[in-house]
Amino acid sequence: MLHLVGLGLADEKDITVRGLEIVKKAERVYLEAYTAILLVDKSKLEEFYGRPVIEADRELVESGSDDILAGADKTDIAFLVVGDPFGATTHTDLVLRARELGIQTNVVPNASIMSGIGCTGLQLYNFGQTVSMVFFTENWKPSSFYDKVRENAQIGLHTLVLLDIKVKEQSMENLARGRRIFEPPRYMTVAQCATQLVETEETRQEGVYHADSLAVGAARVGAPDQKIVVGTLEELSSVDMGAPLHSLVLLGRRTHDLERDYIRQFAVDEKTFDASYQKYYGHST
Amino acid sequence: MLHLVGLGLADEKDITVRGLEIVKKAERVYLEAYTAILLVDKSKLEEFYGRPVIEADRELVESGSDDILAGADKTDIAFLVVGDPFGATTHTDLVLRARELGIQTNVVPNASIMSGIGCTGLQLYNFGQTVSMVFFTENWKPSSFYDKVRENAQIGLHTLVLLDIKVKEQSMENLARGRRIFEPPRYMTVAQCATQLVETEETRQEGVYHADSLAVGAARVGAPDQKIVVGTLEELSSVDMGAPLHSLVLLGRRTHDLERDYIRQFAVDEKTFDASYQKYYGHST
Repeated sequence: MLHLVGLGLADEKDITVRGLEIVKKAERVYLEAYTAILLVDKSKLEEFYGRPVIEADRELVESGSDDILAGADKTDIAFLVVGDPFGATTHTDLVLRARELGIQTNVVPNASIMSGIGCTGLQLYNFGQTVSMVFFTENWKPSSFYDKVRENAQIGLHTLVLLDIKVKEQSMENLARGRRIFEPPRYMTVAQCATQLVETEETRQEGVYHADSLAVGAARVGAPDQKIVVGTLEELSSVDMGAPLHSLVLLGRRTHDLERDYIRQFAVDEKTFDASYQKYYGHST
Repeated sequence: MLHLVGLGLADEKDITVRGLEIVKKAERVYLEAYTAILLVDKSKLEEFYGRPVIEADRELVESGSDDILAGADKTDIAFLVVGDPFGATTHTDLVLRARELGIQTNVVPNASIMSGIGCTGLQLYNFGQTVSMVFFTENWKPSSFYDKVRENAQIGLHTLVLLDIKVKEQSMENLARGRRIFEPPRYMTVAQCATQLVETEETRQEGVYHADSLAVGAARVGAPDQKIVVGTLEELSSVDMGAPLHSLVLLGRRTHDLERDYIRQFAVDEKTFDASYQKYYGHST
């Protein structure tokens, strides 16, 4: 059987009791390590599980899935996913491939950033579709997220923005020369995201949000040193939230009083918070 | 310290290792037992934890929260929540009250139905706001959910419908006479929800969805006997999904081919699935 086991968000102890039992008895244990990271090293996981863990990069999962599935018709294979196996990145392709090969699957859910973001005090009910923000380059500043934010904003809903992760990326030169040399991993910060949001509004000029619109930055959700900061996009553009992973929520017009009361405690500056709130938020329609 | 510990969705083994450590050392352990249920009895939890568990009903949480918090400035109090502490029902009021009393809080995330619904194969990215469906009575058939579904549908997004739970409800007579006699708990089924959806469309007649629109029913998400069924609302109106808890997703117009391929395996009838899909779904805009 193929077991897709969610690891949750922070460290080795966020696995569920059920998930840990599976890891301990599985024949092989893979860790999906290219769409999200835990806040601890693989060696920490191996020590905690008492088992070797095989890192599964994008290449292995997308092209070599039959290697992962080898023998799974007879023994238990565990495929560990940071967050939830069907959360921000779904692994339905692996499940479908297993099904084609006649291999049974079992999914062990866990916290995902898609629900964990509730720790900000914003109601998950009031979120619209989720968008992703990639690292802009000089010539590539995709703004399809902007149209989706507009759709959410027209209804008055919050938008969760998931921030880019670059793991095992090759430079153009190394790629061209076929050298398997990888750049150091990069994780987008709340400040980088806020800066790119403002830049996109300046380019598009359609008023979907403004430099003084409110957003919530969240870092290391679920970890003991989790950090939440609320401010205008301008304020967040220079905030330091510390180590990865970061996420950001653009506040929706329909923010409820209870949500306001909760997030206000995280304000960079209560005065700018109140001024922006008064200007744009707290509408019931 | 007040620890809000998510229990996940199915049974006693869905708690995280971190959560279990907290429960084992806490001075008192409360279980929030009125907005969601685990699929096991409280006694099963007590046996697994080796600790007594105090059931916290709505009255205790909303009016008696100071009893829950008593002593939490000096010792550890665990407040267990089915799903995630900030998931479908948020407990921000309890956290704010603790803060007023100078009590530190700690949240242990877990799977919530808000992310667990990803097990259907539908991308969490593509969900709009979440709605709730309450039990209709002869004279009370609230349809505010219908307007929210319309907002999601206009964008083409999926809508998660959370189904009503009636726990510790009193009959009008017992309430009037002040008798603390409670009705047996009731959990809305996918079939009841689909029926009420169709009834509401017939009343409102605004074409937000149709009797032959597709929906995904999910029962006991995360449990070994989890069940997913896909069909038209008409088909789902007579489907038997077994024991609670149930949820339903109304499919959005923008459903992706990958989502279709995954959910089709759960179709009540592939022919009606394909016919409805062709009619309403798979549009990229």
